Amino acid sequence: MEAFDLIVIGGGPGGYLAAERAAQGGLKVCLFEKRALGGVCLNEGCIPTKTLLNSAKLYRHATESENFGVKSENVTFDHAQVIKRKAKVVKTLVGGVGMTMSANKVNVVSAPAAVNGRQDGKFKVSAEGKDYFADRLILALGSEAVVPPIPGVKEGVESGFVMTNREILDETQLPKTLAVIGGGVIGLEMACYFASVGVKVTVIEMMPKIAGPTDNDICKVLQSEYEKRGMVFKLSAKVLSVKPGAVVYEDKDGQHECPCDKVLLSVGRRAATKNAGLESIGVEMNRGAIVTDDTLATTVPNVWAVGDCNGKLMLAHTAYREAEVAVNNILGKKDRINYNSIPSVIYTDPEVASVGYTKEAAEKAGMKVKEVNVPMMYAGRYVAEVDGGKGFCKIVLDTDKNRVVGVHLVGSYASEMILSAAMMVDTELPPERLKKFVFPHPTVCEVIREAIFKL
Amino acid sequence: MEAFDLIVIGGGPGGYLAAERAAQGGLKVCLFEKRALGGVCLNEGCIPTKTLLNSAKLYRHATESENFGVKSENVTFDHAQVIKRKAKVVKTLVGGVGMTMSANKVNVVSAPAAVNGRQDGKFKVSAEGKDYFADRLILALGSEAVVPPIPGVKEGVESGFVMTNREILDETQLPKTLAVIGGGVIGLEMACYFASVGVKVTVIEMMPKIAGPTDNDICKVLQSEYEKRGMVFKLSAKVLSVKPGAVVYEDKDGQHECPCDKVLLSVGRRAATKNAGLESIGVEMNRGAIVTDDTLATTVPNVWAVGDCNGKLMLAHTAYREAEVAVNNILGKKDRINYNSIPSVIYTDPEVASVGYTKEAAEKAGMKVKEVNVPMMYAGRYVAEVDGGKGFCKIVLDTDKNRVVGVHLVGSYASEMILSAAMMVDTELPPERLKKFVFPHPTVCEVIREAIFKL
Repeated sequence: MEAFDLIVIGGGPGGYLAAERAAQGGLKVCLFEKRALGGVCLNEGCIPTKTLLNSAKLYRHATESENFGVKSENVTFDHAQVIKRKAKVVKTLVGGVGMTMSANKVNVVSAPAAVNGRQDGKFKVSAEGKDYFADRLILALGSEAVVPPIPGVKEGVESGFVMTNREILDETQLPKTLAVIGGGVIGLEMACYFASVGVKVTVIEMMPKIAGPTDNDICKVLQSEYEKRGMVFKLSAKVLSVKPGAVVYEDKDGQHECPCDKVLLSVGRRAATKNAGLESIGVEMNRGAIVTDDTLATTVPNVWAVGDCNGKLMLAHTAYREAEVAVNNILGKKDRINYNSIPSVIYTDPEVASVGYTKEAAEKAGMKVKEVNVPMMYAGRYVAEVDGGKGFCKIVLDTDKNRVVGVHLVGSYASEMILSAAMMVDTELPPERLKKFVFPHPTVCEVIREAIFKL
Repeated sequence: MEAFDLIVIGGGPGGYLAAERAAQGGLKVCLFEKRALGGVCLNEGCIPTKTLLNSAKLYRHATESENFGVKSENVTFDHAQVIKRKAKVVKTLVGGVGMTMSANKVNVVSAPAAVNGRQDGKFKVSAEGKDYFADRLILALGSEAVVPPIPGVKEGVESGFVMTNREILDETQLPKTLAVIGGGVIGLEMACYFASVGVKVTVIEMMPKIAGPTDNDICKVLQSEYEKRGMVFKLSAKVLSVKPGAVVYEDKDGQHECPCDKVLLSVGRRAATKNAGLESIGVEMNRGAIVTDDTLATTVPNVWAVGDCNGKLMLAHTAYREAEVAVNNILGKKDRINYNSIPSVIYTDPEVASVGYTKEAAEKAGMKVKEVNVPMMYAGRYVAEVDGGKGFCKIVLDTDKNRVVGVHLVGSYASEMILSAAMMVDTELPPERLKKFVFPHPTVCEVIREAIFKL
């Protein structure tokens, strides 16, 4: 009987970090992963897309820098080379996770695993006909792309005409035209990549705006920047069917066809909880996701659920923190997660980064708020580096509590600046205290300082 | 008799911000500036150099992105266009400062001004034959490039062969070869610009290392990256003289000549306190700089000194904070500056950013410390964007007090990441608390998180 202190099912960011921290805490850990260590994030999500988007940025720099004194001729973009480099980057990082697991003596089993009830007071997990036992479970099952029951989608996926985030990342040829169904974060990042390197992209989104719950003014900037580069947006548009060579959708003006060489399906993701045997131990679910509290405990004692499978924020860094909270509680260190100060980033160009409440969301939650909006042109570095940029920083203040509850950025370096904003939200320091931090000059992050002084 | 609540002498970052904040606080303010609003920072320092360095980065992206799938032919670099754009950027920002002064009803006098004793219980300041009076003074006199008494330097400056940061920023032609005397921050940034765009650059530095008090390992990375691009470093080398077409220096192997088309002199800056009439009110000085306490008060009641002229850190953002501390104290709000958590940045490529103590400095200050060093390759985004990068993050922990006293970064985005590190140092939160901040994934700033978990 192979018995562990902890079994972790799923080797994505939540799972592998939980395994690492638990092992560092002295537990004997077994980790199951059915595809590749690193999960969606590393293999078909965050990392591959950032590799692509970085190349798109370099292409723009090579082609659009004449004002900055740099002139190039015959600039070509080699998508196959980008995909090749992406594979190398993923291999490096997946290898790194593997080495971390070995270094921490985590027992890694590369096989699909399912919970299989209990035996002798322990949880039983079965994989490829073999049984494993543990006193505790961490479920880190991840998520999968939703493939909606739209006529023609299933056939399109089979023929390769319709792709999800997984398949599109292995295409070595650029399509001439691409229809993106769903203008959320994943759809937008891919749309931006393809549009930046010359593909004619149409984004079809059911809502009247792109980028989901992102601040409205940020969405407008993003949309207008991408329209300038030739991207077409069909908003408030419902996809009716997919047929070879076209997406059929309907908007207030009636039914239309969007002809295209390929379709990217990005209408959302859902917790991958099927076939995990959760019913064998009676874990409570809510619309397919595992119910957890702020210690990441499920309704079953000694079972935790971290990452996308609990359906909370579906971000790799949320999974990291959830993993740490779960392991801390397992190790007897009290810890709770605060979902209000978790940043999120859209790696389009310009970049978008947010933390906390938008004005609308804060008001909806019953807060009395003040919002300030400062253009990035207030920051000398932004003026030095960007011509005619439309970037800005919004800060949302809870005026009763006198603390910052939201920061929203669009523009250069937003991704790397948002951590400081997240720290402001998380520490709940009043603006009077925030004013005493010294921001390096000249940086774009000084726009946050300017906004604080306008609160 | 033209009387004010406050006279500010000097319109650089310290001066103009002091004027703005004081006016916002209800004071009647007069600001004197003899050259251009924005001072050295805006006109011949931070902002112009960042404009240049950004163009150099774009040039590198256009020429060195083949691995990333981007191939260009016949890439040219138009230095005159860069200088032209720099002038436009500076004009925009100087105009912005002017508008801020008007909007806040600050009386701006464009003339050299000097303190001229007291009269009727007020300070008297004279400019171009006219007298101005105020109850309080803020001295924001700035600094000037040191021109050392090396034989030939004076003649070189007169002929245009030798330049300081001021003159070099208006040269519209690239020299073929450039000798940089002084391998501190200013010298390095300019050296990096010129080397990146094809100029053969030799840096001659008296110390055995470049970049002054910057962490030794960071200096090594910087030096080796620049040597790869053809820059030559002559360290522990003393300049003996400058003669037309060459710099003569001496090192342990004897005397040498460095032939060059132009020379950049960047051996340091000193407080610009001469001819300011400070003796007329008896302000205490220390080696040419104005003595201040941690409220920025001088030894004369109602006189404050902010920015480079107090000789403290000589960074624009230090001047900002000093200006705010001085004005807060003038307005009756107690405030003190903490010099230990002020970040500094070198905008070379790779970027360098630091805050607080290096290990060596902390040990010298009597602390018991632990240092961790994590390669940026631990951050997925860095792997995705940089091939073979040597970037890293060092954190220095005071083990007695269990708090972070220094963070040192070399690599992409260091400039925009260091604010979060400065907040960690400034808030004095223990590592256990820092671990609970959620860092966005995938970002390069995650390397700070990795380092925190190794403390």
